[in-house]
Amino acid sequence: MYQKQEFNKRPTKIGRRSLSRSISQSSTDSYSSAASYTDSSDDETSPRDKQQKNSKGNGDFCIKNIKQADFGRREIEIAEQEMPALMALRKRAQGEKPLAGAKVVGCTHITAQTAVLMETLSALGAQCRWAACNIYSTQNEVAAALAEGGFSVFAWKGESEDDFWWCIDRCVNLEGWQPNMILDDGGDLTHWIYKKYPNMFKKIKGIVEESVTGVHRLYQLSKAGKLCVPAMNVNDSVTKQKFDNLYCCRESILDGLKRTTDVMFGGKQVVVCGYGEVGKGCCAALKAMGSIVYVTEIDPICALQACMDGFRLVKLNEVIRQVDIVITCTGNKNVVVRENLDRMKNGCIVCNMGHSNTEIDVASLRTPELTWERVRSQVDHVIWPDGKRIVLLAEGRLLNLSCSTVPTFVLSITATTQALALIELYNAPEGRYKQDVYLLPKKMDEYVASLHLPTFDAHLTELTDEQAKYLGLNKNGPFKPNYYRRVAVRSL
Amino acid sequence: MYQKQEFNKRPTKIGRRSLSRSISQSSTDSYSSAASYTDSSDDETSPRDKQQKNSKGNGDFCIKNIKQADFGRREIEIAEQEMPALMALRKRAQGEKPLAGAKVVGCTHITAQTAVLMETLSALGAQCRWAACNIYSTQNEVAAALAEGGFSVFAWKGESEDDFWWCIDRCVNLEGWQPNMILDDGGDLTHWIYKKYPNMFKKIKGIVEESVTGVHRLYQLSKAGKLCVPAMNVNDSVTKQKFDNLYCCRESILDGLKRTTDVMFGGKQVVVCGYGEVGKGCCAALKAMGSIVYVTEIDPICALQACMDGFRLVKLNEVIRQVDIVITCTGNKNVVVRENLDRMKNGCIVCNMGHSNTEIDVASLRTPELTWERVRSQVDHVIWPDGKRIVLLAEGRLLNLSCSTVPTFVLSITATTQALALIELYNAPEGRYKQDVYLLPKKMDEYVASLHLPTFDAHLTELTDEQAKYLGLNKNGPFKPNYYRRVAVRSL
Amino acid sequence: MYQKQEFNKRPTKIGRRSLSRSISQSSTDSYSSAASYTDSSDDETSPRDKQQKNSKGNGDFCIKNIKQADFGRREIEIAEQEMPALMALRKRAQGEKPLAGAKVVGCTHITAQTAVLMETLSALGAQCRWAACNIYSTQNEVAAALAEGGFSVFAWKGESEDDFWWCIDRCVNLEGWQPNMILDDGGDLTHWIYKKYPNMFKKIKGIVEESVTGVHRLYQLSKAGKLCVPAMNVNDSVTKQKFDNLYCCRESILDGLKRTTDVMFGGKQVVVCGYGEVGKGCCAALKAMGSIVYVTEIDPICALQACMDGFRLVKLNEVIRQVDIVITCTGNKNVVVRENLDRMKNGCIVCNMGHSNTEIDVASLRTPELTWERVRSQVDHVIWPDGKRIVLLAEGRLLNLSCSTVPTFVLSITATTQALALIELYNAPEGRYKQDVYLLPKKMDEYVASLHLPTFDAHLTELTDEQAKYLGLNKNGPFKPNYYRRVAVRSL
Amino acid sequence: MYQKQEFNKRPTKIGRRSLSRSISQSSTDSYSSAASYTDSSDDETSPRDKQQKNSKGNGDFCIKNIKQADFGRREIEIAEQEMPALMALRKRAQGEKPLAGAKVVGCTHITAQTAVLMETLSALGAQCRWAACNIYSTQNEVAAALAEGGFSVFAWKGESEDDFWWCIDRCVNLEGWQPNMILDDGGDLTHWIYKKYPNMFKKIKGIVEESVTGVHRLYQLSKAGKLCVPAMNVNDSVTKQKFDNLYCCRESILDGLKRTTDVMFGGKQVVVCGYGEVGKGCCAALKAMGSIVYVTEIDPICALQACMDGFRLVKLNEVIRQVDIVITCTGNKNVVVRENLDRMKNGCIVCNMGHSNTEIDVASLRTPELTWERVRSQVDHVIWPDGKRIVLLAEGRLLNLSCSTVPTFVLSITATTQALALIELYNAPEGRYKQDVYLLPKKMDEYVASLHLPTFDAHLTELTDEQAKYLGLNKNGPFKPNYYRRVAVRSL
Repeated sequence: MYQKQEFNKRPTKIGRRSLSRSISQSSTDSYSSAASYTDSSDDETSPRDKQQKNSKGNGDFCIKNIKQADFGRREIEIAEQEMPALMALRKRAQGEKPLAGAKVVGCTHITAQTAVLMETLSALGAQCRWAACNIYSTQNEVAAALAEGGFSVFAWKGESEDDFWWCIDRCVNLEGWQPNMILDDGGDLTHWIYKKYPNMFKKIKGIVEESVTGVHRLYQLSKAGKLCVPAMNVNDSVTKQKFDNLYCCRESILDGLKRTTDVMFGGKQVVVCGYGEVGKGCCAALKAMGSIVYVTEIDPICALQACMDGFRLVKLNEVIRQVDIVITCTGNKNVVVRENLDRMKNGCIVCNMGHSNTEIDVASLRTPELTWERVRSQVDHVIWPDGKRIVLLAEGRLLNLSCSTVPTFVLSITATTQALALIELYNAPEGRYKQDVYLLPKKMDEYVASLHLPTFDAHLTELTDEQAKYLGLNKNGPFKPNYYRRVAVRSL
Repeated sequence: MYQKQEFNKRPTKIGRRSLSRSISQSSTDSYSSAASYTDSSDDETSPRDKQQKNSKGNGDFCIKNIKQADFGRREIEIAEQEMPALMALRKRAQGEKPLAGAKVVGCTHITAQTAVLMETLSALGAQCRWAACNIYSTQNEVAAALAEGGFSVFAWKGESEDDFWWCIDRCVNLEGWQPNMILDDGGDLTHWIYKKYPNMFKKIKGIVEESVTGVHRLYQLSKAGKLCVPAMNVNDSVTKQKFDNLYCCRESILDGLKRTTDVMFGGKQVVVCGYGEVGKGCCAALKAMGSIVYVTEIDPICALQACMDGFRLVKLNEVIRQVDIVITCTGNKNVVVRENLDRMKNGCIVCNMGHSNTEIDVASLRTPELTWERVRSQVDHVIWPDGKRIVLLAEGRLLNLSCSTVPTFVLSITATTQALALIELYNAPEGRYKQDVYLLPKKMDEYVASLHLPTFDAHLTELTDEQAKYLGLNKNGPFKPNYYRRVAVRSL
Repeated sequence: MYQKQEFNKRPTKIGRRSLSRSISQSSTDSYSSAASYTDSSDDETSPRDKQQKNSKGNGDFCIKNIKQADFGRREIEIAEQEMPALMALRKRAQGEKPLAGAKVVGCTHITAQTAVLMETLSALGAQCRWAACNIYSTQNEVAAALAEGGFSVFAWKGESEDDFWWCIDRCVNLEGWQPNMILDDGGDLTHWIYKKYPNMFKKIKGIVEESVTGVHRLYQLSKAGKLCVPAMNVNDSVTKQKFDNLYCCRESILDGLKRTTDVMFGGKQVVVCGYGEVGKGCCAALKAMGSIVYVTEIDPICALQACMDGFRLVKLNEVIRQVDIVITCTGNKNVVVRENLDRMKNGCIVCNMGHSNTEIDVASLRTPELTWERVRSQVDHVIWPDGKRIVLLAEGRLLNLSCSTVPTFVLSITATTQALALIELYNAPEGRYKQDVYLLPKKMDEYVASLHLPTFDAHLTELTDEQAKYLGLNKNGPFKPNYYRRVAVRSL
Repeated sequence: MYQKQEFNKRPTKIGRRSLSRSISQSSTDSYSSAASYTDSSDDETSPRDKQQKNSKGNGDFCIKNIKQADFGRREIEIAEQEMPALMALRKRAQGEKPLAGAKVVGCTHITAQTAVLMETLSALGAQCRWAACNIYSTQNEVAAALAEGGFSVFAWKGESEDDFWWCIDRCVNLEGWQPNMILDDGGDLTHWIYKKYPNMFKKIKGIVEESVTGVHRLYQLSKAGKLCVPAMNVNDSVTKQKFDNLYCCRESILDGLKRTTDVMFGGKQVVVCGYGEVGKGCCAALKAMGSIVYVTEIDPICALQACMDGFRLVKLNEVIRQVDIVITCTGNKNVVVRENLDRMKNGCIVCNMGHSNTEIDVASLRTPELTWERVRSQVDHVIWPDGKRIVLLAEGRLLNLSCSTVPTFVLSITATTQALALIELYNAPEGRYKQDVYLLPKKMDEYVASLHLPTFDAHLTELTDEQAKYLGLNKNGPFKPNYYRRVAVRSL
């Protein structure tokens, strides 16, 4: 639902969503390359007014155009090649069906990568009904391919708010069918069921939620004593965190800056605000490209790490006049304020890699004496009365989502984590999970990682019996205790 | 007590101590440069048989030679310059004395750095009695300076086992004086009091322990329900861990290899076993110097990190024939076994950076068909019948302790952590700490870091009131939750 | 003229042009972002058939549409901000006019950056007449702005071959006007004068040529004894070489791969063919992003450097089955041949960063059993009968020109070099330069560098008199002898 | 002869030698580890007064003690293992003897590595007579092994100046024997022959000289028209330069600083004066270890490289108050002067990696108000009246020679270069070389590199016939023109 706040269409939801991050963001962008298939569609009829059936006569879906199924299938096939972990799960599940009997209702971005996930869940034995978690992010031709393949999908690119909730309702509200698992991204589906069909929770075995916002809402429910099923927070699993933040941002900071500004990195002075995983990734990449990087931090432990990694730790004001690029990665608000912007030099580039669009106080730039000039998509020149220009990227929204792409490998990590969380919750013996919010068990987290090692032709070493005994470990893991490295949101 | 196992003098303790790491190791080595003052001493009388008094007539100590006090004072003064965090603590404590009334009994390495710690504790209001935790590591001239300054120190370089326990007993067993705080390194002091003076625990407010071994023993006591006071595990504080492992090893792997072998790193093929913090430090350093580095791992999450950091993940046997250097950093045993050693190429260097001396199966090399040739201090050539030589460093013991030095900055982090842990336990309101083992509170951990930032002329940013509120944080920290990043021993 | 060979419009010129590199390449691409202004123009009348006049009534030019002058001026102003070295030259020339009396005829890409160069030459005292060196690369609105500003420009985007030579001729063949300096990029202008107006050389003081092709033709003329004026090869100046190759490619390899494939670099196995400056840049960047990089080389000195920099030196066949990305940077032909392509794994990305489009034997892929599928602009999937796909970028042409952009900073280095070469040749005392091809004097090369230091707020140290004497140097340089680092073409 | 200036024993030679660098330096240090064998020798008789014979009755040598031959042989055998290039040359020469008939008189450091060179020359067919180029650097046991092996060696550790020239004379002045090749390091041997036996040059085919000083003297002879045979400057061969400077210093800066000061590099602020090859190596290493590095330069081209590599370019005074370490790498004098030293902060480390010991104005520190305190070998504290200390390493002499070691691999590059230069000069057809100073032909330079590739298991690619033709190259090289990268002395 991230995009909504960008378009200011549903302002009432902005506040509530302002914490949204991670998967939502990732998938938001992943559809960008393929979305063009349907952009030029001139069919203005609402999908809700159309009657469509797939080639087998099934009509339990609502999408833009079933005729695009072939294009969508092609997209899915390409994504399959880059998501070997899910394909491996399918293979391993050929004998046993760990999700046999599962009825999963899902609400996520609907993209080729999600389709690979859904078809994997199906191969593992689950039935699936699905809606979109974002009114803009649906790849229509992928939705068509899913519908053609027999999935009950209710989603199209460009839904209205009313459409949005209508689609969710169609997923859930079907006579003779009740979900027993929820896969959510942002918490809207969960919210809808709580509000409209609270009785459904009697049969639901668990919720898997992957966005920061959704997790936040679950913890609030839990604190209020209102959470009535176990929920799994997959956003904070170790593997997913490392990829969403450190590894992904190490590459996307360069990519996002290049695509928007063509700036040369060598010799540039850059200040990075925040030295969490995102900041570490940005700093490492820019240093490697020959930039001179300064860091600001509030946490002395992160600050000391920045020092030991070779970055001068400064207050923003010490360097603001001299830097060529300012990057925020704090998760905080008003990190770069008007006073800072006033002091920047001509041509300074300002962008945000952190988790909300309030890190840069963009609102403070919307004053009469400043002129805005859109020079490219996602690039504005803000011009001071004396002619000074600063180059503002993506209006202060997340650079890596707005101006870069998320590699399929990162999405594969997320989708695999979701699949394993569903399997875990669905198969857990009575009593293992209470009505609380859980992290993915360390062993499953390790399993996600191990499923991705073949991509790198990486060969894991096995403990000998003697070694396992010496370390007090099971030979198959988990190799770290469950409490190892719970990364809090604000560790960004 | 690490050295003991090296010299095989007290074999019965070896097993029990095999987990010893970290501070013990650090301080073990730190005395090396200055110890020479007393090496040539030809006075063979046991300190126990001498009656010495300091210039004020005080004789409540037992050391080698009070006349060396001036030399020791000079050593302490130099160390003070490099431990600004403790000096800052002294200054801040000029008004309030947070350890007023504290009676600290300590058992650690007795070096110039420890002296700075002891004199800091004293400045904060504490009385101190001290013994050595290692029979070889005492800097005699520093002990003399401490005795001259009025500290009751019982320690000298080259104690016998009997001396060792006698010294500890003299610290504790004094009429009219009872300790109320314990600072231990290895657990021997704690063990002694448990065994001989269990009643003393009634007055003791807490134990601060910093070695892996000691912590291990405390957890065992706790599990057995026998821990009768709160204990603080300072070994696993975040700041200390990062410095003991990642930052320290990143430099000491290069230093240790150079001092022993003068090997050129450029173009060398190296395999690093284990990609925890120590492994990460070793890999980063060698890659930067132009080596080609392979990694072995058992944990898929660490393995995936190695891949993303640009290292080929292999099984040892895949590369053992071709590599020039083999480094173990696992904390496991028998990581490099005779079969591997047999297959190495002529001139291959083998060393251990991990936590025990069993990572390389050195025992398997002590067979008749192999010839050992000592070519330098800490460097053996092991020669196969066909003339092949491998270069074994430090007989498989820790390279960074045996063949390198620990920077004072790392020791400063440790000493500051110890001081703050003592303050916390001593001043904690009734009930905050139970009879359990605790980690240093995150806020104190952050304070240790912040005290070291001035060394780098690093300037921390402060949250505004608005930002603190937005993040739900106190402006002064803690900035991460307490459960953040508990690093288990085996995360190495 | 590089684009011509891509479009196969003038096949007879391809052979002759196949060595074209460097500036031509750079500027080829630089127009891409802005060219869109005129793409949609539906005015199909040939500029040759139009009579246009600028606002001052001057009609001595031939361009697409004088009305676009304002748009072009805006482009030029933006470029000025990023070319401070030329602006500095203008300032320094306010008193003296080092090009007073110079009549420069030029044939280069006509872009905003070139406009800044031309207006600088004008400010230095020169008269300029200009044609395009490439039939596609002209930014029409920039040409309009130049015409409006009084420059005699003959160029538009989409010239025919006949137009091309007609434009050149119009530059040269003007009654009552004779050029005395030539600035050429590719050698076509020089060729035309040699062929049509050989007498003109009597008044010409020198030629400045910046493309590999053009330089090659000049050396051939020289060898044949037919060069009748001094010529300056600015392609091989040290500063320009470093930026065109090492620094530019270090960034553009990442940019080009991301924009075309969104590939994640972390953990990828890459083979880079050739370890000259371009290869060094590619290797350094990919290593920093976490790729595992192999290198192939023919020259043992470069090979040894690759080893010392931490790259395994292999033959292509040793790794071809396992790598994810293949990059050629050799300047050679048939470096990757069909046999290699047959053995690559599914999904392998193949691209060329070297100097000709024959490094990858793309022709060998145009056989009936292989299917080509265009998946994005500049991205083809070539599909084997068994379904294996390789991802071929830019059809084997230069990735950094086709799929990335050249930073203005690099173009600024080139333009400044050209300006200084013109000044040097124009002002050289009789006899300093013979009828031969020269490199830019070291001192001028250093001056180009020094003019770009302020961009980085970099402060150069000055020799004291005593130091200069000790080193036997002039305090103002040159600091290296002239023969220092002549980089041959094939050092790529 | 480098050591002489350190010990101030022969002050009259200091001035003349102040340019000495490179090989001289390298080998100066290489003997350090083994020299201890003979340190404790209490035989005070001068070797000149002893009559010794080897086991075959040959007495044409003068060394310390023939009985040490076995120890020396062992040293030579170990060195052989690390000098595979020379061993490969021996093998390839088994059929042809390219030095058959050569009578080489040599004057270099006499170390195990030199012995491997001498025995290689012998295996190639040459007769050798040898003296030491430095009065301190001879490894006596190696000299013994050479004498035992039949070489006429005249050298021992601790020669007087008179001994020095006597030894040289004994090499040259032998009835019935005349040298036809000279291998010199420093130019003393050449000088002696010029002065005493000028007629000898009639039979001499060439001189191979490898030190900066010696090369300088040869160029002066040449300029004065007094050079009467061809001479080869091997100091400036590309392969040797890269290893002597960039690769060697990248490692030795870390090693030298650690061994002397145990400083932690992480977070330290460092200024490196000079960004030639040595400076580049130092900067890269320290940056990789987490230091913040500033650079000073006089040459704008090197300065721009520093910027693009991510270093702030400053004047020394801008950062002198804040840095923790100052390193000179300029080849210039008085780069760090008293005024700078006065402004450094307490504890600042100052050292020299450049080519002369005048880069730091150490003399300016020998004033009454400053106190010098020797704290370790090669480490002085210089103490200001206010108590400020700076840490001066090696009294401003070369850190990498005084406090680090030169890897055998670097010495192997040098020795192989020398051997090939001798072969080239000895076998060159009449007229190829005139009475001038030459660089090693590019092809031989490449050959040196290729002989060292097997050490890295590196596999060179061969050009196909078609490719060689396309590039206009011979398949076996040279791959770069001879004028490629002539590195001038002051490029350091």
